[in-house]
Amino acid sequence: MFNARSIRHCRVCGAPTEYRTPPDDNRDRAICTVCGEVHYENPLNVVGTVPVLDARVLLCRRNIEPRRGFWTLPAGFMELGETTEQGALRETVEEAGAEVELEPLFTVLNVVHVGQVHFYYRARMTSAKLDPGPETIEARLFAEAEIPWNELAFKTVKVTLERYFEDRRKGQFLTHSADIA
Amino acid sequence: MFNARSIRHCRVCGAPTEYRTPPDDNRDRAICTVCGEVHYENPLNVVGTVPVLDARVLLCRRNIEPRRGFWTLPAGFMELGETTEQGALRETVEEAGAEVELEPLFTVLNVVHVGQVHFYYRARMTSAKLDPGPETIEARLFAEAEIPWNELAFKTVKVTLERYFEDRRKGQFLTHSADIA
Repeated sequence: MFNARSIRHCRVCGAPTEYRTPPDDNRDRAICTVCGEVHYENPLNVVGTVPVLDARVLLCRRNIEPRRGFWTLPAGFMELGETTEQGALRETVEEAGAEVELEPLFTVLNVVHVGQVHFYYRARMTSAKLDPGPETIEARLFAEAEIPWNELAFKTVKVTLERYFEDRRKGQFLTHSADIA
Repeated sequence: MFNARSIRHCRVCGAPTEYRTPPDDNRDRAICTVCGEVHYENPLNVVGTVPVLDARVLLCRRNIEPRRGFWTLPAGFMELGETTEQGALRETVEEAGAEVELEPLFTVLNVVHVGQVHFYYRARMTSAKLDPGPETIEARLFAEAEIPWNELAFKTVKVTLERYFEDRRKGQFLTHSADIA
């Protein structure tokens, strides 16, 4: 669950905050009881790729919680100072050490119960080189028939892979939106 | 400019923070000097719509800074507890009082220098009723030839409107990504 109402002290002056609705707003915010600073809490973006080489998709076995040991597409939190594309590329390098060229945006997935929006870009692997980072136990390529559907780490990964193989069969890749319950 | 490095005190205990790179991370974070809490700063999402009625587009004249008096599409910060679609719909009601049905995602715009990602959905107005909220001086419909191109509030609005009219001429609406300098 996202950390709503987790701000107990002011980031500016350190004094205690209280949750109330500011004038001209319509929901509670953490407001500093001393300096009046208003603290907003908003959804976070997770950015990643569907890396493909010779019709096989690259998955990474997670070496970190949550879902350690389960398979995921390379993805992680978007950082300040980068675009969604740059973040997706960075995560692909950090988690798999893969060399890819980004293709168009493929899925935009709202995961409201954790306060996240996930973006996956299709990506063409430009070499077979893999060099997984510390967050990854193992990275390998899977043909569609080999995908470990029951050992995927997250529903966003499952939905993205399902849409990917559906679109590939149809011969046309679109940008898909979905809400993940 | 986004508020990177703006966290001077810990949200959990109020003690001073310092910026340094945690173990197993690769960039500086605000870390509490007493309890060790790590504070992340990430991009924010702005969600809005391109509301259309009888081939005319709805714009709102801003009653708030920045860019008070300039014209914008209805949009605002995505909140916890909602999807991008729900946020876009909420902002359309709050700023214009318009009744719309959402259509597919139209633009995804990275605005790195302010740490934001903007999402615009196409939207079909289901009535001509408008009821602008306190953040809006005036809301009205514009034919393409009437768009006040030199009085638009933000580059994201300009790019979204340009793509909208281009796609309409082509007779096919796609999902567009762009980086806004």
